[in-house]
Amino acid sequence: MKINELKGILKKKGLDAALFYSSGMEPNPNMVYFSQYYGVGALIVPKNQKAFLIVPEMEYERAKSSLIKKAYSMNKKRFFESISLILKKNKIKMKNFGIDKSAFTLLAYKSFKKCFKKSKTKDLALDCLELRQIKTREEIKIIKKAFDYADKIINKAIKNFKKFKTESEAAAFLEYEAKKRGLGTSFPPIVASGKNASMPHHMPKNTKLQKGFCVIDFGIKYQGYCTDITRAICIGKPSRQEKEIYNFLLKIQKGIIDSIKPNDNCGKIYGNCVKNLGEYSKYFTHGLGHGVGVEIHELPNLTLNSKGKIRKGMVFTIEPGIYIPKKFGIRIEDSILMGERPVILTNAPKDLLIV
Amino acid sequence: MKINELKGILKKKGLDAALFYSSGMEPNPNMVYFSQYYGVGALIVPKNQKAFLIVPEMEYERAKSSLIKKAYSMNKKRFFESISLILKKNKIKMKNFGIDKSAFTLLAYKSFKKCFKKSKTKDLALDCLELRQIKTREEIKIIKKAFDYADKIINKAIKNFKKFKTESEAAAFLEYEAKKRGLGTSFPPIVASGKNASMPHHMPKNTKLQKGFCVIDFGIKYQGYCTDITRAICIGKPSRQEKEIYNFLLKIQKGIIDSIKPNDNCGKIYGNCVKNLGEYSKYFTHGLGHGVGVEIHELPNLTLNSKGKIRKGMVFTIEPGIYIPKKFGIRIEDSILMGERPVILTNAPKDLLIV
Repeated sequence: MKINELKGILKKKGLDAALFYSSGMEPNPNMVYFSQYYGVGALIVPKNQKAFLIVPEMEYERAKSSLIKKAYSMNKKRFFESISLILKKNKIKMKNFGIDKSAFTLLAYKSFKKCFKKSKTKDLALDCLELRQIKTREEIKIIKKAFDYADKIINKAIKNFKKFKTESEAAAFLEYEAKKRGLGTSFPPIVASGKNASMPHHMPKNTKLQKGFCVIDFGIKYQGYCTDITRAICIGKPSRQEKEIYNFLLKIQKGIIDSIKPNDNCGKIYGNCVKNLGEYSKYFTHGLGHGVGVEIHELPNLTLNSKGKIRKGMVFTIEPGIYIPKKFGIRIEDSILMGERPVILTNAPKDLLIV
Repeated sequence: MKINELKGILKKKGLDAALFYSSGMEPNPNMVYFSQYYGVGALIVPKNQKAFLIVPEMEYERAKSSLIKKAYSMNKKRFFESISLILKKNKIKMKNFGIDKSAFTLLAYKSFKKCFKKSKTKDLALDCLELRQIKTREEIKIIKKAFDYADKIINKAIKNFKKFKTESEAAAFLEYEAKKRGLGTSFPPIVASGKNASMPHHMPKNTKLQKGFCVIDFGIKYQGYCTDITRAICIGKPSRQEKEIYNFLLKIQKGIIDSIKPNDNCGKIYGNCVKNLGEYSKYFTHGLGHGVGVEIHELPNLTLNSKGKIRKGMVFTIEPGIYIPKKFGIRIEDSILMGERPVILTNAPKDLLIV
């Protein structure tokens, strides 16, 4: 995506080429974004030439079938040496590189500098995040499909919820339904019941599902793109108090979504949520939302003091929560695509579901 | 694990403290190793004081219940600033830090240097890898349990194989069986059939399982520890040629394992495998083996020119393979624990299984 926009940034910043790399199991998000290639290797985007991948021999076929059709083989053990040889052969200027300093380790930089002694580097981390936060039409097509898959899966899980005995079982079911369709997950699903739900990042345990609220936070990955949704359901009949607090949070969540307009300040949206939560705001211990794309956490950030603005083409979450330590927790999260008005991408029911 | 050994290294290297951090979704393997804490935050190991974690408020309870019982809350947005304030309060000397440069990004280093202007850093990446490659008795207990789980799951998958229509379905089953037991996976399972099996890192697709060899590469995560096993099974009746090549590879794989002794040179073990593969060695396109621990790829490396030596207490894989491009692929992988003699940790059957 947007490889021409990246070339524009290179020219503006006086850079000869961009270099992104991944040396291990973890794909580099910018490589995925620009090339749709997921493996070990490097993506080179020269400002005036066609971009290409440099990958270990065993990944060559995969690289050739990515968005970037051009690829070279490398010796993985001589990672940056291989890259420098190929750049020399292709007469790519190597004086000024743009790199992603948020995904470039000190160790890699040391071996990079050995092979590119005279090269200078500038950081493109923020430029890439900013490019990525406004989705293209092609991306939106992929993203909508991704969210359709995710809706089907979470609905199926909730429908089957009575069959699950443990948090792990429910989480495993969510992953299974994604994986068997050839999809990935954006993050390990969270299924947190009883007092576990009071920890927003609780990891599902092989323990019995408890009565009361159960938080389900789930996202799939489709063609490199993440989705994100949270539902809080109730195991067993909720008390009047439980119903009240759920509906209180739901009303706030819906109100925020309805009111969002292009150019809104992200920090202000967060601030409004805190105001609406009133005395419960002290039990709201995380941000209100984040961008979603090739990474599960991208720009924009809807947090305290965030200076970002909402713009058309952004995809982000709205996820207020209330966590009473050692008692219970609820969170209601939708992902929205910003147009003239917000379009909700997550269509699983939001009214309190009792299982 | 081995936090005292780490303190010994700090003293030897003239360092005041070790600092490991994780700022995102990916746990830092050294933090996991030393603390068994998986989330966002930092682990500080002062050379002469008790180690402690510094984590966002929402992770505080999790940090307190890790191996390191001592924890402080931080402001995640002012990551290194929070850390420096807590270190000052605790009167930890901050002149010389040991860090893991393979897991420290350039961007993080920049904000670290803003808060620790006068501090110097030395790399502990290799020291940690070397500490980690010899497993302790406690680790071996965990690792054996982990491999028992993994065996059960891969055996169950092979038993059920006829029910799977697609690679994705088989891979999803493997993950489901892990996750429902509250286990993680070491990497996304590989299920590669037909000519897909000729790509060692093929990602399972939502396409029909093909006749012939099907490579299944699978690992779980239990209490932070990885397992690794590969079996090549045959879908449908194998030809005489298929049987021959499988048994040829199996004999080589068994022979290598049987012959390994403490103090063997890792490069030589790889070289012997290549020699035994004879004319097929050109179809063997990856390393022979790698250490397994809190990361799926650790020391030792059993590759060309590797100078490492096999030592007692190591856990590593032996995984020769033959990949005929666009035709088929086979790989047989066991993980072994080195004692006086090698102990195979992966006990799923190895004779050619026909499903």
